[in-house]
Formats: sequence, C-alpha cells, structure tokens
Amino acid sequence: MTDQTSWSQLLEPVRADLAGVQHVLEDELGQVSPPLRDVLQLRVGGGKRLRAALVVLSARLLGVPVAPFYTLGAAVETLHAATLIHDDVVDDSPVRRGQAALHTVWPVGATVLAGDYLLALSASLVAGLGQPALLKIFGGALCTICAGEIRQMQPPGDVADPRAEYERSIEAKTATLFAAATQMAAMLAGATETQVAALFTFGRELGMAYQITDDVLDLVADEEELGKAVGSDLRQGLLTLPVLLYLEGAAEDCPVREVLAGQNDEAHVQAALQAILSSGATAAALAEAHACASRARQALLIFPDVPARRTLAALAEYIVARRR
Amino acid sequence: MTDQTSWSQLLEPVRADLAGVQHVLEDELGQVSPPLRDVLQLRVGGGKRLRAALVVLSARLLGVPVAPFYTLGAAVETLHAATLIHDDVVDDSPVRRGQAALHTVWPVGATVLAGDYLLALSASLVAGLGQPALLKIFGGALCTICAGEIRQMQPPGDVADPRAEYERSIEAKTATLFAAATQMAAMLAGATETQVAALFTFGRELGMAYQITDDVLDLVADEEELGKAVGSDLRQGLLTLPVLLYLEGAAEDCPVREVLAGQNDEAHVQAALQAILSSGATAAALAEAHACASRARQALLIFPDVPARRTLAALAEYIVARRR
Repeated sequence: MTDQTSWSQLLEPVRADLAGVQHVLEDELGQVSPPLRDVLQLRVGGGKRLRAALVVLSARLLGVPVAPFYTLGAAVETLHAATLIHDDVVDDSPVRRGQAALHTVWPVGATVLAGDYLLALSASLVAGLGQPALLKIFGGALCTICAGEIRQMQPPGDVADPRAEYERSIEAKTATLFAAATQMAAMLAGATETQVAALFTFGRELGMAYQITDDVLDLVADEEELGKAVGSDLRQGLLTLPVLLYLEGAAEDCPVREVLAGQNDEAHVQAALQAILSSGATAAALAEAHACASRARQALLIFPDVPARRTLAALAEYIVARRR
Repeated sequence: MTDQTSWSQLLEPVRADLAGVQHVLEDELGQVSPPLRDVLQLRVGGGKRLRAALVVLSARLLGVPVAPFYTLGAAVETLHAATLIHDDVVDDSPVRRGQAALHTVWPVGATVLAGDYLLALSASLVAGLGQPALLKIFGGALCTICAGEIRQMQPPGDVADPRAEYERSIEAKTATLFAAATQMAAMLAGATETQVAALFTFGRELGMAYQITDDVLDLVADEEELGKAVGSDLRQGLLTLPVLLYLEGAAEDCPVREVLAGQNDEAHVQAALQAILSSGATAAALAEAHACASRARQALLIFPDVPARRTLAALAEYIVARRR
C-alpha cells in the first residue's frame, strides 16, 4: 500500500465533504481575474487537504450540519497555501507539491502579492462566517506562524534550551494551524468549552506528531518515497528533534557537529546520518511523536464513539506510522 | 508654510486621538519578540496617520465615544504599513518614509514575513472589535488592493479603455483603503445606511483625489519638496492620468511615447516632462482631482456642521492643494 493510497483511504469518509470544500475554493477563485486566477487555482489545488479534513471531521464529530464548515475548511486550506507560497520565497525552494514553486516561474513581487491575496481571501472567508471569535483565532494563528518563521531565520546564537526552542518552532510552523482548524471548527459548531479545549488539544498534538515525524523522515526515509534528498534539514543546519537527541549524548568532535558547522559535503552528511541512525536518536524522536499522537487520541475520548472519532483517531495513528 | 506643518495643523483637532491610536499600536507591537518587534515599531511608526485620522474623525462626526476607534485606526494603519512593506519588495524601492526600505536592510524573506505579521495583526485588531460586517469590508479591501497591484504588474497589452484602467488601478491602490476606513468607522459607530454610504463616498473620492494629485506631483513638484526625482512614474512607464490626458491629443512620434517605449535617458525624460506640462495635461488632471475632492466634500453635507466635518472638508481641500 503506497502512502498516497493510505491518505485517500483514511480520508474516504469525508471525500464528499472535501469535494464541498473544493467547491467553495473554486467558487472563490473563479471570481478572480486572470492571470492571478489561473495561478491561484493551480497553487491552492493539490495537497491532501488534511487541514480541511480536520475541520469537517470536527463538525461530524459534534454532529452538526456540515455546510458552513466547507467555508471554514476552504479558509484554512487557503491560509495554508498562502503560507506555503511565502515560505518558498523565504527559503527559495524550487519545488512545491511536485510543481515548480511559484516564485521560480513568476516574479518574486507578484508571488508575494499572490500570497497576500490568498491571506486576504482566507480572512474574508472566516469573516463571512460571522463570528469574530473565529477571526481572532485565525489572526492569532497567522501572527504565531509568521513570528515563528522569522525567529527561525535568526542565527541560532546561544539558545538556552534547544529542545524548548525546537518545540516552539514546530508548534508555530505546523501545530498552530492544525489546532486553529479544530478549535475554530469546534467554536463554529457551538461546542462546549470542554469540547473546544479537547479539539484544540487534538489538533495541537496531532500537529506536533506530524512535524516530529516529518523531521525523522528527513533522516530515515527512502529517498524515492520521500520525493527529496534524505538529510535536507541537516544540510541546512536545522536542529530538529532527532538531531538534538543525538547531540545530547555525542562527543564534541562528532560528525553531526561537523555538518552543522558547515562541512556539508556528501561524505560528511552520510557519516552524520549514519551516526544519528545508529545512536537510536531517530527511534527516540519517533517515540515522542507517538506520545503526541497518543495524547491527541486521548483528547477524543470525551466524545461519543461515532465514525468521525474513529477517523480522527486513525489519522493520529497513521501520521506517525507513515513512510513519507 | 511647509507641507509637513500643514498636515499637522490640519490634524491638530485629532492629535490626542492619534496619540490614542499610537498607544494601541505600541501595546500590540510591544508584545512581539525582538528582533521583529524593533523592526515593526520602526516601520509602523512614521507617516502622517491620515487613514487613522479619517477613522477617528468619522467617529467624531457621528458624535460617538471614540475609544474603540483607536483600535480600528490602528488596524487600518497596520494594514497600510503591511502593504507598504510588501510594495517596496515588489517595486524594489530603496526608501520609505525617509528610511531605507525594510527589504534593503533585512533579508527579503524576513521582510515578506514581517508584512504578513502586520496583515495578521490588523485582521486580529478588526476581529477584536466583534463586528463581523467590519471584517467582511476589511478582507474585501485587502483582496482588492492585492488584485489591483498584481494587475498593475502585468504588461499593459491592449487595454481597451486606458482611462477606466487607470481609475481601477488607483481605486485599488489608494481609494479602497480610504473608503474602507471611513465605511468601517461609520458601521462601528452604528450609523444609518445613508450615513455609511456618505462616509464611504467621502473616503473613496478623497482617496481618488489623493492619488491623482500624487500622480500630478510626480510630474510637476519641486524635487526637493517631493523628496524624490520628478518623473519617477514616467520613467517606470506608468500610465498615470496626466500622461493619458496628454497622449489623447499627442502625435504618434511625441517624446512621451518615446520614453514609454523605453528611451528613458535624462534628455528624453526632460523633453517628455516639458511636453506634458506645456500641453495643459497636468492642469486637466488636477481639475479631475478637484472634482473628486468636491464630491467628497459634498458627501459630508448630510452631516451636521460640527468641527469634525470642517476638518474632513479641510482635508479634502488640502489634499489637492498640497505641493508634495
């Protein structure tokens, strides 16, 4: 079973709902003038729509009519697409979702504006739901995401607690939007405070599990399955959890420190990868991802055992078990 | 009397209110971690706060308690600052508000993210006012601004109606935010539909007058007063109103067409400037700006003749009379 199959199988129960989300997106983007329209349609398309799925599954979990959640799901996916477009400018990444990144085929300025347009559209979609509390969360999430990325661009310097810094960074990068998606969905559903808090926790822990797993896969995945070179993060000098766990028990002159100090030729990178793998650091990091996923599943237990709860729990299991 | 003095004299009646707006901005930005905080404080600072002044003057015009309008004014100024930061990236402009543009001293990526942060903050501020209708206007305005700028980046091609295209462009670039500021203020004040429409018209026409005047000043201002080279827009090939008015009556081989076709050395630019000035096109464009300003003042007549109405009317007069 390929990973693509797994995602679609897992999300099969919300296939019709995701088509509803897609319909909202096409409606909104159809109103834009070309050439922006064509670019946006291409860039908002693709992806597995995991964040929109979290929104509609939250609605299904709470047993409320799901139509307004298509708009919220579209808003979350639009925000996600906007941040990806700007991220690719920031990182100068050549590829996104199997296509040339927008800034490599469009002027950088137009790319920035296209991202802005999507930010504006996502805010408008949330605004259209008529609940200012949702927009507060939405705006707060975007602030956190941007501040986190800017922080990550600074030279690391003397970080007092690198593990805490890592958690803060992946929370901003990934978990914030997952948590905002499930929290906003719960609020839109008129859930109780306890239910809102539980869905927030689910989203947050799921996001943490997702990103830690991503960071492990960067070191251990099959290159063909992963679709990019193994060790990309390491080459960029990113202090991900498995790297930090390795460094906690490593000698001063270990190969990983050499790579992080800038000696990132192929021989050094391979030696560093080997050292991390044989140290057990990736397994330890994955154990943390499993702990997050387990807390995510735990948070679901206050809800009745409906199909949506089983789908959400299955997502939490799969997110740490996937191979890419 | 210098222009700076004129702005401050005109805005003197709302000096305390603008300090209130400033207080909200400092509060919000004070919560950001450095180095982003310092950058944002610097970049959101400066400027004459004309848009925030429109917000608080609208509140004063309607005779409502003004405190919530400080938040709205701060939101509008934050949005404006965000669009300026991204604009400078798009146009690769070296200077903004007398300082080096942010992207010339910070990495472009971080600059994009700083602008995103301000967009998110402005949406959060509007959300905090608790009125979904305001958010719809806010989100719509941002969409219009972005779409307009992207449109302007496209090669002009065969524009069927260049005058209509120009109007559309300056509406998106300037008038949309002016109109959103006064319209949102009227709605926040609980104004009647007629009052909301009147303040929308005031903001829109004021914005059009402001931008047409800017486009004329680009051709006729004193360089020292303007703070940049005369003819910058022309050198960039922008089809502003005075240029369009000139072209309507010009020969096929006129000096302006040569500059627009890319011959923008100093001799050609000076010849083109001379040709536009002596054609009366700048005077004709300025007459259009005066017509917009007059419609703006006209829209105020449904309101009682309170001091705020006189200040707004004086702004409309000054906006087309200024020298820079």
